Amino acid sequence: MIEKIDHIGIVVRDLQNGIKLYTEGLGLKVESIEESEEFQTKLAMLPCGEVLIELLEPTGAGMLQDFLNNHGEGLHHIAYKVSNINEALEKASKTFELRDKTPLPGAGGSRIAFLNPASILNVETEFVEK
Amino acid sequence: MIEKIDHIGIVVRDLQNGIKLYTEGLGLKVESIEESEEFQTKLAMLPCGEVLIELLEPTGAGMLQDFLNNHGEGLHHIAYKVSNINEALEKASKTFELRDKTPLPGAGGSRIAFLNPASILNVETEFVEK
Repeated sequence: MIEKIDHIGIVVRDLQNGIKLYTEGLGLKVESIEESEEFQTKLAMLPCGEVLIELLEPTGAGMLQDFLNNHGEGLHHIAYKVSNINEALEKASKTFELRDKTPLPGAGGSRIAFLNPASILNVETEFVEK
Repeated sequence: MIEKIDHIGIVVRDLQNGIKLYTEGLGLKVESIEESEEFQTKLAMLPCGEVLIELLEPTGAGMLQDFLNNHGEGLHHIAYKVSNINEALEKASKTFELRDKTPLPGAGGSRIAFLNPASILNVETEFVEK
């Protein structure tokens, strides 16, 4: 059901500073920058092999702003690429609790859904269908 | 300098429970299980595309036990595969502070080193040379 890791989400206070560190310091390149109304965030995608590093700067109230307020900057989630998100959610629901029972609009026109992290070792876990 | 993401480290309280969730729930398979004296941990590696999910159960005092005590289970670090770790550390030191100035023995006979997370958005960041 899982094809690969699609991206790793990192919450940052300032997107430009995050981009500077990951490009100048680690040599990654920015592939795209966009805003998500759904998740109240600006985000930049930086490919690293077959995975994207997703830098997320919260722009309003929501899950990402809460994380920044409670934990500060840092690693936020792992997103797994699946071919069929409805099928993946149904399968996952046998082991995990779903936070999103139906997919939401994600970056780059994708469909995404999160599990309830309490059911998977406190790891924010996302499925992405592109 | 970075080839790809080598693995994502997740701290768990109980390795067998972690393995159960990631195999039964997400359909991943265990590639290897080992212990690290250096990092006082048992660890399991589960491939997902070109990346490994590394489940870490602390076995004694150290960075991982501290994380478990302070934060509970959860996402711990991103490890980047580099071809030459000494070169990678020298380059990274222009932008980041190094926690490990010289490489330490890592899983599977690798050589590894961590950056100081305070210098990279509070993300525990590891370089791995295999």
